[in-house]
Amino acid sequence: MRLKIEYSYLGREYNGSQKQKNNNTIQNKIEDVLFNFFGVRLELVASGRTDAGVSAIKQIGHFDIDEVFLSNKIGEVVEKNLASLVIRLNYLLPDDIRILRVSKVDSNYHARFNAKNKTYAYNFYVSKVEIPYLSQFCLWVKRDYINLDEMKKAIGYIIGTHDFTSFCASNTDVMDKVRTIYDAKIISSPLGYYSIVISGNGFLYNMLRIIVGTLLDVGYDKINSDTFKNILSMKDRNKAGKTVKSDGLVLVDVVN
Amino acid sequence: MRLKIEYSYLGREYNGSQKQKNNNTIQNKIEDVLFNFFGVRLELVASGRTDAGVSAIKQIGHFDIDEVFLSNKIGEVVEKNLASLVIRLNYLLPDDIRILRVSKVDSNYHARFNAKNKTYAYNFYVSKVEIPYLSQFCLWVKRDYINLDEMKKAIGYIIGTHDFTSFCASNTDVMDKVRTIYDAKIISSPLGYYSIVISGNGFLYNMLRIIVGTLLDVGYDKINSDTFKNILSMKDRNKAGKTVKSDGLVLVDVVN
Repeated sequence: MRLKIEYSYLGREYNGSQKQKNNNTIQNKIEDVLFNFFGVRLELVASGRTDAGVSAIKQIGHFDIDEVFLSNKIGEVVEKNLASLVIRLNYLLPDDIRILRVSKVDSNYHARFNAKNKTYAYNFYVSKVEIPYLSQFCLWVKRDYINLDEMKKAIGYIIGTHDFTSFCASNTDVMDKVRTIYDAKIISSPLGYYSIVISGNGFLYNMLRIIVGTLLDVGYDKINSDTFKNILSMKDRNKAGKTVKSDGLVLVDVVN
Repeated sequence: MRLKIEYSYLGREYNGSQKQKNNNTIQNKIEDVLFNFFGVRLELVASGRTDAGVSAIKQIGHFDIDEVFLSNKIGEVVEKNLASLVIRLNYLLPDDIRILRVSKVDSNYHARFNAKNKTYAYNFYVSKVEIPYLSQFCLWVKRDYINLDEMKKAIGYIIGTHDFTSFCASNTDVMDKVRTIYDAKIISSPLGYYSIVISGNGFLYNMLRIIVGTLLDVGYDKINSDTFKNILSMKDRNKAGKTVKSDGLVLVDVVN
């Protein structure tokens, strides 16, 4: 039986989401709790990895388990059993990881391959002095001013289907660097920070953080939005800006 | 010489902003740092207090100090001296308190009496299971659903000049409970939380937290927006909802 698992985590204390031998990752924590609970080793397959320190408001994964572990008296796995599983697993998990929902899916369902739409947000604020409250979840851009209008122009160019080689870390094995971005925008919060919100069918290694790094170069008036557009078309990682820190990054949603 | 001080803090580890004998408050910390720096005891007067755990993106205060402490060789206090003071005080302060700016003001300037407009935000999210990332700065409303449209209707009724007795903690010495609210709205964040943002010329003790508690009763369909309006006009604290926790509250801005 295949189960889809929706979960949420504050990534600050973890070395990323993907399992590493004897390391403190989200996958290690969840698999350990599944092992403690069921007494068998189960493998969690996530929709994708998040880097060290990165949080997820909603992440999706799947794992396979024998029905017998979750069946009621007449051998059926009903909604109630799964709801009770969520509560009991959350009791075992640390406070900064929470399972939102577990549901039965077809055996050909796959958390990664079925992920149709992922939304990330990258939060930042602009201030000469640090704002401790905002630094909890935003990148601190140590400036007086940023050219937000030009950044908003630039971000529009990534919408659509493009080869994102310019915005992909060079140390990757992925051959096909074509991805589709459904929506990309910069939203001002009443708290005084900005969220760069990007939805797409998939993201390459460090793609979000390189896009943000290059957008910040636009904001600093180092390059303009036309240059940003040209960088995308050049398919050359060296033309783009630097990979920003993961401080402001959060996986907001995965649809599959 | 009177100096205006703009500052910012993450309130989580503090017992509020206002000085208490031998206690860990924002005012104690800043006054201790001023004492360490200048060697004399100076009193910080803030635009108002914030409760235990509450943060400020921008708070304003003032203090008096003899010019001699900050004068250059020819006996003048210039911008450069004050900019350097900010850097040196921030070096002494803990990471969760930051001074944004210090500027010279008239001797009749008063951080509290001159405060013309204060803006607070109260952040919350709605989910049956906790979202650890959002709980960093939001109240967790443990529900599947909230009636946001009705809440938006209700909050409009507090705009204008009203007697806010219904939304003021009963244990207060303040006689005049008339305050003017310039703006009040509920804004959705792309991160999936909501901010109740309220600006006004002043706020009574617990006023924000009682307004939010009563607005949440509207969101839970326990009362409707008309009842909310009636509660305001009744001038009776017992008619309003409960004082919510300070979890989602932040002072966003003070103008004076």
